[in-house]
Amino acid sequence: MAPTPEAIRATVEAYVQAVAGGTVDDVLALFAPGATVEDPVGTPVRTTEAELREFYGMVAPLKQEGEVLTVRVAGDSAAFHFRLVTIMDDQRFELSPIDVMTFDDDAKITSMRAYWGPEDMVSG
Amino acid sequence: MAPTPEAIRATVEAYVQAVAGGTVDDVLALFAPGATVEDPVGTPVRTTEAELREFYGMVAPLKQEGEVLTVRVAGDSAAFHFRLVTIMDDQRFELSPIDVMTFDDDAKITSMRAYWGPEDMVSG
Repeated sequence: MAPTPEAIRATVEAYVQAVAGGTVDDVLALFAPGATVEDPVGTPVRTTEAELREFYGMVAPLKQEGEVLTVRVAGDSAAFHFRLVTIMDDQRFELSPIDVMTFDDDAKITSMRAYWGPEDMVSG
Repeated sequence: MAPTPEAIRATVEAYVQAVAGGTVDDVLALFAPGATVEDPVGTPVRTTEAELREFYGMVAPLKQEGEVLTVRVAGDSAAFHFRLVTIMDDQRFELSPIDVMTFDDDAKITSMRAYWGPEDMVSG
């Protein structure tokens, strides 16, 4: 059975909070086996757990705040706009991508594709 | 050569304005030959010009206002959040989907996929 919109929204919220303030294991627990990650869209797709672990391991040690801004669910997919603020010393780096995900019947993430470009990175 | 982010953003803006206030021909002029439309995601993909013409023909006669809220460009793709307000008699129906598009070298649309669900339709 397809996941409910509520289950998909819960996974999206958990994902943004895990990326911002959780461990790599917290993030990976939200993915289904065999899930793929393309971030940003147009770069090589990460297809193995080791690649996902390496990717999310880069952001896990950073001090970050995350906020889901808008979620749109369609069938077993979602697109969502979220803000990730990284705090380093006195500087704040803000990135608010639009991510697209697909989900399995348990609302685990089967694919993630992130839409953003260099011009979307804001510091201040 | 891949389209520039600026060219992609211009097509997105023109698309939202054409859907809101233009003719079917205005909308179709922004698509490349062979373009596909899946709206919402999970429904059958429209693959012919006749199908695209029929689809956009349903919204063309409506009195609408459109506004682009957020655009994120990645390579030859974009995801964008926009608002479409339909005015019928004294009622306003508002839908603000997140669309994902791919573009050819001339920044013509080669595919469109719209993320929204019944719960995103707001009237008032």
